Amino acid sequence: MSKPRIAIDMDEVIADVVPKFLDIYQRLFGVRLQPRDYWGKKVYQIDGADQIRSFLHEKGFFLDLPVMPGSQETIRRLMEDYDVFITTAAMEFRASFEDKYDWLAQHFPFIHWKNIVFCGDKSIIQADYMIDDHAFNLRAFNGKGLLYTAPHNVHETGFTRVDNWQDISAFFEREKR
Amino acid sequence: MSKPRIAIDMDEVIADVVPKFLDIYQRLFGVRLQPRDYWGKKVYQIDGADQIRSFLHEKGFFLDLPVMPGSQETIRRLMEDYDVFITTAAMEFRASFEDKYDWLAQHFPFIHWKNIVFCGDKSIIQADYMIDDHAFNLRAFNGKGLLYTAPHNVHETGFTRVDNWQDISAFFEREKR
Repeated sequence: MSKPRIAIDMDEVIADVVPKFLDIYQRLFGVRLQPRDYWGKKVYQIDGADQIRSFLHEKGFFLDLPVMPGSQETIRRLMEDYDVFITTAAMEFRASFEDKYDWLAQHFPFIHWKNIVFCGDKSIIQADYMIDDHAFNLRAFNGKGLLYTAPHNVHETGFTRVDNWQDISAFFEREKR
Repeated sequence: MSKPRIAIDMDEVIADVVPKFLDIYQRLFGVRLQPRDYWGKKVYQIDGADQIRSFLHEKGFFLDLPVMPGSQETIRRLMEDYDVFITTAAMEFRASFEDKYDWLAQHFPFIHWKNIVFCGDKSIIQADYMIDDHAFNLRAFNGKGLLYTAPHNVHETGFTRVDNWQDISAFFEREKR
């Protein structure tokens, strides 16, 4: 009997990309953005800031992102009861592949390469649970989706929302009952 | 209404790795292997040849593989009626990511990045059809599996077998009826 499977996104779920975008914005425009400035959107969706999205194509962008607090401990514990896959839409960014692989090896060495997926359209993913910051990924998913709160998705409704890894831990504790 | 989905493997399905292994064997051991020498196994499973497997980790290994005859034309035609994904177990080989991405861009430019998946364990793949040379991938698959004949799998039974892309084309012609 195989364990139920959880598909976990990388960016804005286990890796925090927002501080890096804020740094780039500040370097380019001389201003430190406040949450209200990018509430409901990505930093590169702010008027005049679309050039920031091109940094996603640079080697190294994904290599030094901070780990989301609590994600390592929680995933390690979830792995006792669940088959955990990391499923990231890396395929748009050729330069990200080795960075993302190395980042996972550094911060999540307990996740086997067999359980890592670089994809594009996540509707290809077969799992029981999906934790993702993009509503469109959860809409295309057959299992139970958890929307991980990120500035860009604060206005999304209609999903089970988790704000942090404590919420995820508590969700799966409830699933046990 | 979305199209039915076909998940297609790369190595030994759309990319031919055998000639490169034979070249490496010849360079190392001075002998050109004949099919009977590697029938029922991978070239690196021949006694004394296990070092050949390490070449899979070298940059460039996957970059210049020949395209399987008929695969481009057939896939392009299948895309009219099916949602085609390339699903390759690249994740064991960090050095292969950019090579495989570039190879696909060169030989299959009509396949969108959204439809490319680098994975490990293929049981994560949700599709209606899977074309693969590994029986273990098809065993873990819920849809209809097609075993693409490769020297290493000639003794496998119990799968719908296709020997080449003409067979695949004919299979899907029959599926239409």
